Amino acid sequence: MLQALARPTVGHLDPEFQGLMEEIKQALQRLFNAPDHACVPLPAPGTAGMEAAIMNLLEPGDRAVIAVNGAFGGRMADMAGRAGAEVVTVDHEWGKPVDPAWVEEALEQAPAKVLAFVHAETSTGARSDSATLCAIARKHGALSIVDCVTSLGGIAVDVAAWDADVVYSGTQKCLSAPPGLSPIALSNRAQAAISARKEKVRNWLCDFNLLMSYWGGEGGRTYHHTAPVNALYGLHESLVVLFEEGQQAAIVRHARMHEALAAGLEAVGLRFLVDEPHRLPQLNAVLVPDGIDEAAVRTHVLAKWDLEIGAGLGPLKGKVWRIGLMGASATPWHVRLCLTALCDALTAQGRPADVRAALLAAEGRLAGWRLRG
Amino acid sequence: MLQALARPTVGHLDPEFQGLMEEIKQALQRLFNAPDHACVPLPAPGTAGMEAAIMNLLEPGDRAVIAVNGAFGGRMADMAGRAGAEVVTVDHEWGKPVDPAWVEEALEQAPAKVLAFVHAETSTGARSDSATLCAIARKHGALSIVDCVTSLGGIAVDVAAWDADVVYSGTQKCLSAPPGLSPIALSNRAQAAISARKEKVRNWLCDFNLLMSYWGGEGGRTYHHTAPVNALYGLHESLVVLFEEGQQAAIVRHARMHEALAAGLEAVGLRFLVDEPHRLPQLNAVLVPDGIDEAAVRTHVLAKWDLEIGAGLGPLKGKVWRIGLMGASATPWHVRLCLTALCDALTAQGRPADVRAALLAAEGRLAGWRLRG
Repeated sequence: MLQALARPTVGHLDPEFQGLMEEIKQALQRLFNAPDHACVPLPAPGTAGMEAAIMNLLEPGDRAVIAVNGAFGGRMADMAGRAGAEVVTVDHEWGKPVDPAWVEEALEQAPAKVLAFVHAETSTGARSDSATLCAIARKHGALSIVDCVTSLGGIAVDVAAWDADVVYSGTQKCLSAPPGLSPIALSNRAQAAISARKEKVRNWLCDFNLLMSYWGGEGGRTYHHTAPVNALYGLHESLVVLFEEGQQAAIVRHARMHEALAAGLEAVGLRFLVDEPHRLPQLNAVLVPDGIDEAAVRTHVLAKWDLEIGAGLGPLKGKVWRIGLMGASATPWHVRLCLTALCDALTAQGRPADVRAALLAAEGRLAGWRLRG
Repeated sequence: MLQALARPTVGHLDPEFQGLMEEIKQALQRLFNAPDHACVPLPAPGTAGMEAAIMNLLEPGDRAVIAVNGAFGGRMADMAGRAGAEVVTVDHEWGKPVDPAWVEEALEQAPAKVLAFVHAETSTGARSDSATLCAIARKHGALSIVDCVTSLGGIAVDVAAWDADVVYSGTQKCLSAPPGLSPIALSNRAQAAISARKEKVRNWLCDFNLLMSYWGGEGGRTYHHTAPVNALYGLHESLVVLFEEGQQAAIVRHARMHEALAAGLEAVGLRFLVDEPHRLPQLNAVLVPDGIDEAAVRTHVLAKWDLEIGAGLGPLKGKVWRIGLMGASATPWHVRLCLTALCDALTAQGRPADVRAALLAAEGRLAGWRLRG
């Protein structure tokens, strides 16, 4: 995959590159299962997808209902304010999924143009029910914005089944491409709403009225920005790898690796932040046991085991570790490394953790996975 | 350089990567000659630098004077309107440099918060006098925004001598790194103006109040976006290459390659759009002779010589070709290729062009360059 990045940089207006762009657009439609959506990779990290979604759909005078159950829902609300919208947040405890009943209540109070929520909250490891939330949005005449930065490629993302309006992701999570691009899908309803805006989109780089004439196939391209050619090689290669494995197979793999990790962690008495039915397999938020210096544990596993564990954000700072098993790192080898490194660090902190028990518990699940596989 | 892109992607919060970020920040200060400016590479193409400059310095109620002498000045004016500013454009014929007297007149009419202009207009090949324009801005109490997307690394960019406020560039022009990043420098005056804003910046991804706590060295980093790690490897490598050659040496090389190309083009009767004193060496806008199908020429040189020549934009559509000699493509080999391919295409179009005369004229200059070198 990394070698794909090093292919010679061709001009972004070169016909050869435009062929690659077309392939990527079609592959994104397949990836999102969004055959009727316009799909493009935005030329900036996943946050650009969020900004594009919010800034294109909202303008001053619009009302937006935004579910906040972690850092990224909060960021959406911040952006919607910058777009000039009237923002109504539906606040949840961090670690809980979005509650459809609360969201519906907010939509019943007054009409909203947009309902925005995060499918897979990277800050907490909680999964929300996109199908139900999108259906509530449609019922109340709102356009849905779904953040799939961490979900895409790791759990099922089915834009057509959800009938979602704007769905975006990043490349560096479960796609295992380098960071720097943000795939996005827009429904016909969303495109019509953007065309009908009264004011220009406040963000030029993410203005879909401009972007679609750059990426759009018909009538030739209008120059907009210089596409990050090499990053697109990387995305293309990651899609080739994913489709070779099969999207369904990759989703099963993420689920099994999570089960093995969870069995190992539980064998040494560690617990999860998120209740079992709502856990993301690719982002494991583990509660820090009492009396443990959580930062020292992260420093230990990075220095000694070359393994990066995420810190808690916001109200979860110091309270959880976030262990990612995403894309190419969702393998038995990584599960064993995580368990070994974490047990070693806990033992070094004076809280003995039996690495053998953890690994045996995990291997039981991994063996089952291999038999099923 | 391309191999640098393929180095393993480390976490963007990894201490090793943060060391690389510090090196890049210092190298950008050296590159811009901006020791007292805050310098960072924004995680998106050159247009993101423009958007960041405009969106951070301007808010509703501010007056902005924007010199327009090509496509990119026009884009700045568009963005300033999206920022909610009162926009006064100072319009020039495309191909002319910005006229300091006209700009001063606009600043005298009413106080402005910002004067924005393009140092090196990629759409026309015209160079404007940044030192004089920045001095006029200071005289009238305006902050200067200077677009150096095409100038940086090809002609002198001296932010300290200009005493400019916000200067940005791209990576894919004279730095010859892959597209996808936008280096930017901010003066203390600009930073103070951003801190004193009444409204939030409309563009979250480019909000310097957020970005500086991510990139800033003191007090730890606040998570903002996921840095495009591999693209930053590419930028770092391109800076190593540039500093090995020497910035002054690279500028002399661009000047000499332009002289050789110009001698060759003039030997076969071709003429430039821009008057000689204002020509950019790295972007050569050549007038299309009467009766020539300019698109057929571009198609011919791409298909037969694997050489991409830019088309005219806006009012110059169909009237000029734009020949870039930037960074790693500013070499005698590229000069010869351009002349050979263009003479071949013109001859194929029924306007015989003597390739031998063109090459001999160019070689005269290249030989002189080698003797001087």
